[in-house]
Amino acid sequence: MSRIAYVNGRYVPHGDAAVHIEDRGYQFADGVYEVFGVQHGRLLGEQGHMDRLEYSLDALAIDWPVTKKALRFIIDEVVRRNLVKNGIVYMQITRGAAPRNHAYPTDAEPALVVTARKSKPFDEFDFDAGLGVITIPDIRWKRKDIKSVSLLPNVMGKQQAVDAGCYEAWQVDTDGFVTEGIATNAWIVTKSGELVTRQATTSILNGITRLTMLDFIGDLDIKLVERPFTVAEALDAAEAFLSSSNSPIRGITHIDGQTIGDGTVGPVTRQLIEALLACYDRAADAGVHHPLGEGVEGVA
Amino acid sequence: MSRIAYVNGRYVPHGDAAVHIEDRGYQFADGVYEVFGVQHGRLLGEQGHMDRLEYSLDALAIDWPVTKKALRFIIDEVVRRNLVKNGIVYMQITRGAAPRNHAYPTDAEPALVVTARKSKPFDEFDFDAGLGVITIPDIRWKRKDIKSVSLLPNVMGKQQAVDAGCYEAWQVDTDGFVTEGIATNAWIVTKSGELVTRQATTSILNGITRLTMLDFIGDLDIKLVERPFTVAEALDAAEAFLSSSNSPIRGITHIDGQTIGDGTVGPVTRQLIEALLACYDRAADAGVHHPLGEGVEGVA
Repeated sequence: MSRIAYVNGRYVPHGDAAVHIEDRGYQFADGVYEVFGVQHGRLLGEQGHMDRLEYSLDALAIDWPVTKKALRFIIDEVVRRNLVKNGIVYMQITRGAAPRNHAYPTDAEPALVVTARKSKPFDEFDFDAGLGVITIPDIRWKRKDIKSVSLLPNVMGKQQAVDAGCYEAWQVDTDGFVTEGIATNAWIVTKSGELVTRQATTSILNGITRLTMLDFIGDLDIKLVERPFTVAEALDAAEAFLSSSNSPIRGITHIDGQTIGDGTVGPVTRQLIEALLACYDRAADAGVHHPLGEGVEGVA
Repeated sequence: MSRIAYVNGRYVPHGDAAVHIEDRGYQFADGVYEVFGVQHGRLLGEQGHMDRLEYSLDALAIDWPVTKKALRFIIDEVVRRNLVKNGIVYMQITRGAAPRNHAYPTDAEPALVVTARKSKPFDEFDFDAGLGVITIPDIRWKRKDIKSVSLLPNVMGKQQAVDAGCYEAWQVDTDGFVTEGIATNAWIVTKSGELVTRQATTSILNGITRLTMLDFIGDLDIKLVERPFTVAEALDAAEAFLSSSNSPIRGITHIDGQTIGDGTVGPVTRQLIEALLACYDRAADAGVHHPLGEGVEGVA
């Protein structure tokens, strides 16, 4: 079955999915996006993603391309048409197409693209395998809180990580503090057992998985402190890990080639992975939303 | 006659010109661009633009989508097909389309888009009309020397200028020094007669019009200093102006609502406008390149 994408009012074969060359997303990175995880046919962190989308759109004064209700319907439909039970939904909204001119056009219609793709379910992930990260200077703009498609520095940073044989790059501000990964939030557990992650300001993107974790960490026997940490602190940590919609949590066992802790995925990281997956399972069991429903793979 | 665009090997009606939704220019701002001025059928600053394009492509490790010679042919053809004697050529190169993943794909073909549009010739511009600018914090990333499509902060800044009834916004670094405008370089003439513009580092985009001017300023009786200047210096200047491929030089008579000098376009600015237009005329007369040739408007 070929993939189906939603593009500005139409469901089209993925290979034919196109936008105009003067879509401002293409010429100016003038747009925002969200990536939803899908597990057992359910969107993860839906409200968080929709709230952040609204925040990003407001920051850029981009109108909603359709109502929130219609957007929700489109996302479900793309998930359904692509038979995604486990995977991701990618949604991009730009200011739309207009003759090239930096200032916001007055008459452009916001553009909407939604795609979905399958991946294996989280419970098949190898959470025992620790990942490596490198640290690089954070060269991004000053509004990292907006989830925009202005991602060129992220792309360059991720390539540096790949070139170094690592999964992710932790970006470091001019004061020597880690901001976050390219597409993940950064966490450490100090040797005194403190869980540390940077507070959400304009210096990081406030991850939805991060927010979900903050919601349940209070119920666990873990001391959390939201503050910046240095590369030296990370290298000296007992544990380190990252979070994102895709990961959703993965232990980090090497930073800049140095072993973290005992070189294995540590107990606090494991506890958080279990708690997060349990949280997702509870949400799925609650049946708040199952776009695929039963036996949906039989539906064409 | 409808406009024609070049998109990845085809000349297509502008309205049908499209790129795939997974073109990395759309999803990651993973691309570069150049805007060439065209006067009397001749590309302005061609070598400078091609050199800068090469610099930007190299910085991002993006391959040339076609040979330089072929690219030159395509540009000429787009100019010819759109009957542009005076106007601009817009050219964008991205890393191409690939399944979404931050790291550079190994098998994507770079994408190439070329468009052209007419505008009135420079000698019909009202150079006596002074422009207003505002100053805003420079919130961009740290590689302003790369002419990338990662332009969201520029877009936001230009909109602030428009909202303030101004033509341009001068961006100011954290030390209080002007970097440049949104799409123009920034210049002042001090009361002691010194022409000042910021030196080209990673803090600004090295404008081709700026470079053209640097080439001939040595022949004029003007003392040039390349250094950063503060907003206070700009407000206290005798003259201020901006340069770009589109402008190409325009006097600034107001900054943040304050009158600069005597509120008119000053003598040094006028001298530089005349010298630049003469420089362009000489290049056109030299017949180095006339893509339109004689009577081209009769060609379909």
